Amino acid sequence: MSGKRGLTHNHANRILDGSSMEEAAARLLPDLSAPSCELPSWGKISNERAYKAFGKLNISREISNVLLDGEKEDLTTYQGNIENAIGLLKMPLGVAGPLRINGLSAKGDFPIPLATTEAALVASYHRGCRTITAAGGCSAIVLNESISRAPAFIFESSTDACRFVVWAVDHFESFQKIATTTTAHGKLIDLGCTVEGNHVYANFEYTTGDASGQNMVTLATQAICDEIIATCPVKPTRHYIESNLSGDKKASSRAFSSARGKKVTAEVKLPQEIVRKFLQTTPRDMEDYWKISAIGGVLSGTIGIQGHFANGLTALYLATGQDAACVAESATGITRFEALEDGSLYASVTLPGIMVGTVGGGTSLPTQQACLKMMGLAGNGKSRALAEVCAGLLLAGELSIIAALSAGHFSRAHRKLARTRKPS
Amino acid sequence: MSGKRGLTHNHANRILDGSSMEEAAARLLPDLSAPSCELPSWGKISNERAYKAFGKLNISREISNVLLDGEKEDLTTYQGNIENAIGLLKMPLGVAGPLRINGLSAKGDFPIPLATTEAALVASYHRGCRTITAAGGCSAIVLNESISRAPAFIFESSTDACRFVVWAVDHFESFQKIATTTTAHGKLIDLGCTVEGNHVYANFEYTTGDASGQNMVTLATQAICDEIIATCPVKPTRHYIESNLSGDKKASSRAFSSARGKKVTAEVKLPQEIVRKFLQTTPRDMEDYWKISAIGGVLSGTIGIQGHFANGLTALYLATGQDAACVAESATGITRFEALEDGSLYASVTLPGIMVGTVGGGTSLPTQQACLKMMGLAGNGKSRALAEVCAGLLLAGELSIIAALSAGHFSRAHRKLARTRKPS
Amino acid sequence: MSGKRGLTHNHANRILDGSSMEEAAARLLPDLSAPSCELPSWGKISNERAYKAFGKLNISREISNVLLDGEKEDLTTYQGNIENAIGLLKMPLGVAGPLRINGLSAKGDFPIPLATTEAALVASYHRGCRTITAAGGCSAIVLNESISRAPAFIFESSTDACRFVVWAVDHFESFQKIATTTTAHGKLIDLGCTVEGNHVYANFEYTTGDASGQNMVTLATQAICDEIIATCPVKPTRHYIESNLSGDKKASSRAFSSARGKKVTAEVKLPQEIVRKFLQTTPRDMEDYWKISAIGGVLSGTIGIQGHFANGLTALYLATGQDAACVAESATGITRFEALEDGSLYASVTLPGIMVGTVGGGTSLPTQQACLKMMGLAGNGKSRALAEVCAGLLLAGELSIIAALSAGHFSRAHRKLARTRKPS
Amino acid sequence: MSGKRGLTHNHANRILDGSSMEEAAARLLPDLSAPSCELPSWGKISNERAYKAFGKLNISREISNVLLDGEKEDLTTYQGNIENAIGLLKMPLGVAGPLRINGLSAKGDFPIPLATTEAALVASYHRGCRTITAAGGCSAIVLNESISRAPAFIFESSTDACRFVVWAVDHFESFQKIATTTTAHGKLIDLGCTVEGNHVYANFEYTTGDASGQNMVTLATQAICDEIIATCPVKPTRHYIESNLSGDKKASSRAFSSARGKKVTAEVKLPQEIVRKFLQTTPRDMEDYWKISAIGGVLSGTIGIQGHFANGLTALYLATGQDAACVAESATGITRFEALEDGSLYASVTLPGIMVGTVGGGTSLPTQQACLKMMGLAGNGKSRALAEVCAGLLLAGELSIIAALSAGHFSRAHRKLARTRKPS
Repeated sequence: MSGKRGLTHNHANRILDGSSMEEAAARLLPDLSAPSCELPSWGKISNERAYKAFGKLNISREISNVLLDGEKEDLTTYQGNIENAIGLLKMPLGVAGPLRINGLSAKGDFPIPLATTEAALVASYHRGCRTITAAGGCSAIVLNESISRAPAFIFESSTDACRFVVWAVDHFESFQKIATTTTAHGKLIDLGCTVEGNHVYANFEYTTGDASGQNMVTLATQAICDEIIATCPVKPTRHYIESNLSGDKKASSRAFSSARGKKVTAEVKLPQEIVRKFLQTTPRDMEDYWKISAIGGVLSGTIGIQGHFANGLTALYLATGQDAACVAESATGITRFEALEDGSLYASVTLPGIMVGTVGGGTSLPTQQACLKMMGLAGNGKSRALAEVCAGLLLAGELSIIAALSAGHFSRAHRKLARTRKPS
Repeated sequence: MSGKRGLTHNHANRILDGSSMEEAAARLLPDLSAPSCELPSWGKISNERAYKAFGKLNISREISNVLLDGEKEDLTTYQGNIENAIGLLKMPLGVAGPLRINGLSAKGDFPIPLATTEAALVASYHRGCRTITAAGGCSAIVLNESISRAPAFIFESSTDACRFVVWAVDHFESFQKIATTTTAHGKLIDLGCTVEGNHVYANFEYTTGDASGQNMVTLATQAICDEIIATCPVKPTRHYIESNLSGDKKASSRAFSSARGKKVTAEVKLPQEIVRKFLQTTPRDMEDYWKISAIGGVLSGTIGIQGHFANGLTALYLATGQDAACVAESATGITRFEALEDGSLYASVTLPGIMVGTVGGGTSLPTQQACLKMMGLAGNGKSRALAEVCAGLLLAGELSIIAALSAGHFSRAHRKLARTRKPS
Repeated sequence: MSGKRGLTHNHANRILDGSSMEEAAARLLPDLSAPSCELPSWGKISNERAYKAFGKLNISREISNVLLDGEKEDLTTYQGNIENAIGLLKMPLGVAGPLRINGLSAKGDFPIPLATTEAALVASYHRGCRTITAAGGCSAIVLNESISRAPAFIFESSTDACRFVVWAVDHFESFQKIATTTTAHGKLIDLGCTVEGNHVYANFEYTTGDASGQNMVTLATQAICDEIIATCPVKPTRHYIESNLSGDKKASSRAFSSARGKKVTAEVKLPQEIVRKFLQTTPRDMEDYWKISAIGGVLSGTIGIQGHFANGLTALYLATGQDAACVAESATGITRFEALEDGSLYASVTLPGIMVGTVGGGTSLPTQQACLKMMGLAGNGKSRALAEVCAGLLLAGELSIIAALSAGHFSRAHRKLARTRKPS
Repeated sequence: MSGKRGLTHNHANRILDGSSMEEAAARLLPDLSAPSCELPSWGKISNERAYKAFGKLNISREISNVLLDGEKEDLTTYQGNIENAIGLLKMPLGVAGPLRINGLSAKGDFPIPLATTEAALVASYHRGCRTITAAGGCSAIVLNESISRAPAFIFESSTDACRFVVWAVDHFESFQKIATTTTAHGKLIDLGCTVEGNHVYANFEYTTGDASGQNMVTLATQAICDEIIATCPVKPTRHYIESNLSGDKKASSRAFSSARGKKVTAEVKLPQEIVRKFLQTTPRDMEDYWKISAIGGVLSGTIGIQGHFANGLTALYLATGQDAACVAESATGITRFEALEDGSLYASVTLPGIMVGTVGGGTSLPTQQACLKMMGLAGNGKSRALAEVCAGLLLAGELSIIAALSAGHFSRAHRKLARTRKPS
């Protein structure tokens, strides 16, 4: 099936993985059973309070020990994750949730570990998580998956650039084979070429199993470039493994047209009473604010429309050993709130570029691995679920901040929680 | 002095602080004296190797102990920086540099602490730092300072919106007084109003001393809004403390027209021999690649033109207790490389939105404070210097990655350094 | 009064021109008196039908003759507006309206001449105009005025760039004097400098009387540049009269932060019955569609949020002798629709960059001048009114297209009107 | 062949149309034979001078009569192109060129008719055209073709949205059949679906023969929507024929990821002597300026990097009966200038969204048809050639303006040519 519709078709097949549409749809329905536990927020923190939470959340001693009683570690534990090591940075970890996710891959009540030094952040996301869970959870779906390297090939003329493109798209199958020689998990799924004068920006798109995959696609694309240089009859005068088109480490409009990592959506429908009880406002007030903020974002020239994706995403990326610098590219997307005719609130977030893995990178470091295990999302087969949890968390964060802003509580919350800090 | 030129005039006065232009210019010249120390890179890490580095860098035992031999801490240390605390996250810290900065505020050879879990990152920035230092250091200048909250005021009509704006700009001095009642360090410096139909997006701009200042401007603006509601003859039907126009936590084009936090530039001129020796390429090859990558960025619809600001910035923000979520807004700007006629390379970075403080937020937490002290940038009077160091570091990172990409070494470096990781 | 608030204050004084806020506000209220005439749409066109319309609209024979019975003209009439002339292009002109504008400058019922070759365009705008007029007209306000040239100055170092900026802002008054030597109508009102490495992008902002003003600001800025080069102690290595920062002839996010030409807003409140009668839909359906289309625009990476500003603006720019290429920069902004609690529809458009003049350019050519006269907007003192009419027309166009799309009539209208064309 | 590479493959086959790569490449080479004629610029205009030019250009009396001696026309000539007609607008037409195009479709020396009222525009483009022609012409290639309608479908949940997408991509062939019932020339070639929460933005992409095609794709997509509503098992709660995602009438980043209309590139290599003789500057100075202007554009938040595409494009769109409002979407892209090692200048333009047709719209109106005929581009089979001519013209315009700006002649040219205007 040619064209973009073919990519969509293939993704659907991959993600359904043999289950029927009806089975998939059933997983995504709200689940109104009682949450696995109730976890009220605590601003006054202590080790004791932390153990109490671990107990409630039914988290094993093995995990809590790593996070709370960690033995002094030798730096060699971090070999391969850093150079010029001079020590360890310590950041406090808070927990939000449990957050009920009814995802294609993630299913259940997830405690969400968040690493941050910013007062009010965990409390705000926690409030949003509890709200979602009280409503039976949010649905979450990985809409697309792709990670790319975009080499540039420079030619004498645009004529040669075009000849190269025709050759390259016709040699795609051989590129796929070359890619498999460098990686067992990565799979080349498409090649999109942009000709600009005598330049070709060639976007090689891959799936990368459960790794975030930036290194994997670099190595595979290097091998492909080597082959191109060796065999292509249209010789480039110069070429580069990356042309800055792939969107690596920066927000780009382009992500909306395809995907960067995992494209995910999460949504929830909140009855008016839940909005009132948990968020102290109304669906109508939230939609009213949403409209203002959408235009505020547009006036300031942002990419997408959203409130503070970066806050929760950074905290969760850090806690789970992701590359936090990817927040620059991941924290874009669309938040949408609507007051429905039945009085409830529809809320969704859609992110085109969640960059997460459950293997590789920093995921196997002690505290990071403990955080992944706490969520049941460590190791192979879990990256889509982690992406869905990300989307659910950000939905929670948007609900909480928009509620605070629409109800006029925003500055109050910040004043109160930051004030508990010890004088420095 | 009215208009934007008045703001520029005021900033110049603030930042020169009594010194003459000639004195200021002299500080910014390259310093070709020998670096404070030579620090070759080490990929094989250990506590012993770390202590050796501390020795070379002449860093006190007090600091190295916190980073390497830290006593087990109680969570209460983090009171006021987190809620729902359940433990501590540990990330490895590497050091890059020393990086010589010839800034208006920062002056000297700075060891740069970087927290990351991504292989090759520290090694790459370190290479760039050494290159800059070998050339006598980079100049760095805080070009502008401002942090804002942007409340929205909603009216019956655009007529009322305009009447409100006229009233508000004429009551600016009284807003300034109100702001001082909520903060000793923050100072309201301007008010820019955007009318969109019957909405007013009012951008209150502040300087915030040495704090990053988001909370400070929230509280000051809340007090101003309270006063407006109480006294303005043109009553809004609704208002919100933040309209999503301020650019908080997201990349925006708007930052280029003003500033978000600190607007900083850093530049260096590298002789051809230094480019060859430290970066294994040539100025011409680097400019050639820069042009490709500039267009790659534009084709993908990014804001600004740059390579990987997010990498170094995230690592330095984390190490120094900044709000790492601000990378989403800070990691934009312009990188520019030019091969000069004398054969050398001109390289600069300009970032409109560096969000840093040396007091407040996470800056006083144990390991973060140790990192600031290691650089000599802890406490009051240091935030501009930290912003200049940020710019210098990102310049180093752009030099290193563009060198690697232009010389075809990019994938090799990633393969080599990631491969030393222990199997998980 | 320093800062951006000073510019706002000055603009308010200029535009109120001595009248009180209350007087100004009174002009902007809806006027529910009967329209000056009723002009039903006619798809079947002829000279007779045109004369009938001229009669209804009470347009003088002098004007209608130029538009309909024009004597064969000699090309010399166009001397100074074109080079290498080989003839005349003829485009059909339609009329929409009358459109009632309750503006600060424009006040009354305006017939709107539109030059286009696209079927359905005039009919669609006409429908929108009639709707607005039936509701008592739209208010319209010129929110800001400024047109700039942005020379670039290149220095050896960013240090010199900063020294230059400090010198330049302190010599602003002398630049103002120089500007007056080149133009009687242009006035330099601000200078905003952007430093990027060793480059200075200096934005000289002017008001230009009733001319669109691009040539005027070019000549004034050239004179200023000449003076700078002659007298500034910090010598640039190169400089250019325009750096591509001014936004000339292209859509830019930057326009939202200031203005480009005239920043204008227009708004109307439409009772439900009028929406139903004239637009065959409901306020709620229109808001529902507006939300979809806002997100559609954001997903596609446009600047601002709007439907089809370019259509009406091009047709009116052409008819009135404006530079139609400026549509590229002018056709951005924000359209906003809200269904109010009282059942009515609030609709507004805000455009940051309307580039219009009523003198100079193509405004004095025969048919173009006739069109301006038909609206009563030829000559000095009329450019703000013309900008307000532009905004009102685009509001009409947004109402009409969003109504068609929300009611499902969009494709039907296009099919019907294009079908009347003679077979070619 | 699935994916985007399949679309590229199909486009290559369509455009090569049986000829080999070598044959195609040969057409694109510079042609150094003498130009068909030399046409020096004339600022002092008259009917006599125009006839002289027609003679030189060997343009038939039939055409020149329409442009210069046009009989008084009845409005009924314009039936179907306008409603509410009240007359004719007259704009002066100038000629630039001949411009030598070595395109895949356009081949030869083209006189370029330009309709504008702006002094200096024709002279500037003419200078650029002569420069290109003197260098043997520019190559030009249509890189991609596609025009879309993007309906929105609204569902109860994102789950239903996804189910709809899976259904829709699997029914693509039936949509293709439906499209053929509404149009003989349009062909549905792909469907790209963007899910945002419970919304689906479905982009139906077509080729449209030699028509610009907006109405054609509207009618075809309406028929497809009707079928979807009638047969799709997943029922949308609402749907709209256009969601504002297609990029119709506005600049969008999205165009770079696909195409909007025709994506075209044109390039030329200019020897140093030609740059000096025709443009009074040097390749190095032109590249130096280009870099400044590229960053100026980025700082102002434009889409793409270019100088003044809108000027030439508007003038040529008007002259040839295109929808001039499409300039808003078409006038984006990339201009790139490089001083090569051999001392010559490489210059290219790439535009992702040229919206042109040689049938339909305003193309058959008398003066517009005459302009098309003057270029030999009227009627079927000519639209790709017209798109290539557009790209070549804009390349000429970029060469001319960048030369003027880099040599410091910009303001002088404007002063001189505008001054010849008669006092009004």
